[in-house]
Amino acid sequence: MRVVVAPDSFKGSLPAARACEAIAAGVRRAAPGAEVAAVPMADGGEGTLDCFLAARGGEVVEIAATDPLGRPVKARYALSGDGRSAVVELAAASGLTLVEDVPRDPVNAATTGTGELVADAVRRGAREVLVAVGGSATTDGGSGLLRALGVRFLDARGEDLPPGGAALARLARIDDSGVPPEVRAARFRVACDVTSPLVGPEGAAAVFGPQKGASPGQVRELDAALTVFADVLARDRGVRVHDLPGAGAAGGTCGGLVGVLGAEPSPGAPLMAEITGLPAALDGADLVITGEGRVDGQSAAGKVVSAVAALARERGVPAVALAGGVEGPLDELHALGLTAAFGIADGPRDLDGLKERAAPLLAATAEQVVRLFAR
Amino acid sequence: MRVVVAPDSFKGSLPAARACEAIAAGVRRAAPGAEVAAVPMADGGEGTLDCFLAARGGEVVEIAATDPLGRPVKARYALSGDGRSAVVELAAASGLTLVEDVPRDPVNAATTGTGELVADAVRRGAREVLVAVGGSATTDGGSGLLRALGVRFLDARGEDLPPGGAALARLARIDDSGVPPEVRAARFRVACDVTSPLVGPEGAAAVFGPQKGASPGQVRELDAALTVFADVLARDRGVRVHDLPGAGAAGGTCGGLVGVLGAEPSPGAPLMAEITGLPAALDGADLVITGEGRVDGQSAAGKVVSAVAALARERGVPAVALAGGVEGPLDELHALGLTAAFGIADGPRDLDGLKERAAPLLAATAEQVVRLFAR
Repeated sequence: MRVVVAPDSFKGSLPAARACEAIAAGVRRAAPGAEVAAVPMADGGEGTLDCFLAARGGEVVEIAATDPLGRPVKARYALSGDGRSAVVELAAASGLTLVEDVPRDPVNAATTGTGELVADAVRRGAREVLVAVGGSATTDGGSGLLRALGVRFLDARGEDLPPGGAALARLARIDDSGVPPEVRAARFRVACDVTSPLVGPEGAAAVFGPQKGASPGQVRELDAALTVFADVLARDRGVRVHDLPGAGAAGGTCGGLVGVLGAEPSPGAPLMAEITGLPAALDGADLVITGEGRVDGQSAAGKVVSAVAALARERGVPAVALAGGVEGPLDELHALGLTAAFGIADGPRDLDGLKERAAPLLAATAEQVVRLFAR
Repeated sequence: MRVVVAPDSFKGSLPAARACEAIAAGVRRAAPGAEVAAVPMADGGEGTLDCFLAARGGEVVEIAATDPLGRPVKARYALSGDGRSAVVELAAASGLTLVEDVPRDPVNAATTGTGELVADAVRRGAREVLVAVGGSATTDGGSGLLRALGVRFLDARGEDLPPGGAALARLARIDDSGVPPEVRAARFRVACDVTSPLVGPEGAAAVFGPQKGASPGQVRELDAALTVFADVLARDRGVRVHDLPGAGAAGGTCGGLVGVLGAEPSPGAPLMAEITGLPAALDGADLVITGEGRVDGQSAAGKVVSAVAALARERGVPAVALAGGVEGPLDELHALGLTAAFGIADGPRDLDGLKERAAPLLAATAEQVVRLFAR
């Protein structure tokens, strides 16, 4: 029997690699002869660097970068063992948590630092860069990131715009002539955590602006500016990102990367599944056990459990999810391909108690699942 | 697919019949075409009357009886629809909870009231009487019960002994000539909740005497008296109950019934399984789902989950237990035949929250089990 173990991290409790170990231990207790393949997963959020490094080897690189308000910040990204690929989490240099010490400034906050990380990775040889967005302080359409890669955002007089989303209202032309050839040659992929379009009532400014501190007036200002950005992209480059699902992720960073660099947007978990080689691991498997802190029927398509279930279904492999919390109805997940989901709680426990005992509880539940499966 | 649903009651939460309904609903959600057989179970403790009535039909009979200290008490037993069989719970007329209002009197407390219930059942036509022991206030070797059925306990001068366990120290002879023929013809079965012998350091007085209020001196007095009783049974009737496993149940009531009436002792759950027709229901089944409030590796052989698992194994039927609390390791239960056990908690919850939502949680977990089973 071949069992693939592919959980997300259990937030605040177990990194994905440790969740793998716990589940694998339970599988082996139930089926000592089973071949167990551990594939720690992530969805582009917490644990994404670890997931990438577990799959590709490599190291964490820390450099001096610029925070959303232009201040210096140390930030980290992951470079693969062969130096050919990298993962940059947008929150590392452009996250909302970096600017909690000062009044929020949503119209001027910029993704410059993330661009510096990307530039560093490319400089070191990365030809495939995965940008995991989410948790940003910015609504600049990724213009700061692009600027750090050599893109110029010009007004009608040919002057560079200042950083931040609001300035894009005066955007007349995008000049990418200064982008180095290795950046042009690189493949950019964006792991998006939401499916919002770039602009409009469901767009980056309207939906996420307020949590970044934007007033209703600033939301209108930012939405108008992002619309100008999108209009220029459509006019000059023939790329329409206004309504592209996911383009609104991280204050429009996804839309900007798609429009200017031809980046490929994707929900986080399927993208990480590709990175980890999960599809190949599932070929010929008898069972896959996934899991995460919470599973519910509304689990977005970008979540690990849904992505694993979908890949498993394509291959006819039964998929079981283990979770600290399971909130039904699970019909949508079942329809996606999830065979079954089980909570790991062994009785009355509070959240801390569950988190503390997550490893043995995961092992115990995995053991019971495999016993039933292999009966 | 044929699924048998055979849970115990979930103490303080769901009677077995309602647990059956909840589990069956989950099974049907997962497998709408499944044939579901509901067999509410019990282990001789809480819910035993209900379990019996669900299996045999019939009614609860309430009569005036005598409590452990000789006071009047209303007590109930169950008579089957055909009037041929009955279940009497010893706690109904001889339970410790009936005498909580007064100082405990372990040396004199008697099972007379239970005998009155048995006598009433036989008078109404019952030819098979199941006595479910447990929770007794008495250590009288069942002498009170037997006396109510016409048995006389005589001293060396041929005088009747007074009620209670201590008086048996003066037992010289048992006279059953006054036992009516219908009592002699009846089959008595005792559902024992413990495996203690009648006497000695693991016996009725030593182990259970203290919780009934016996001082160390009274424990010795009662143990000696029960030994005299057992000696007389061995000498005059050739039945040795001193060391019989279970004979010590309910202050030796099981031993007395075995020795005088030829009663058949049994752990509670296997006996109730026979009463409910569970073995026949399991023949040809694809899966059985059992359960109870708590499942642990030490679950005694008398518990519902173990009994169901053992019967299922004999028939090659996978058995899954669902429980509010699951305490591993479950190796012993697995060895008995339990395929797997799952907790029903869907996340962090306190005990009250779990009990309150037991029905939907059972349904949800059963659904997932059947989805995995029938994949």
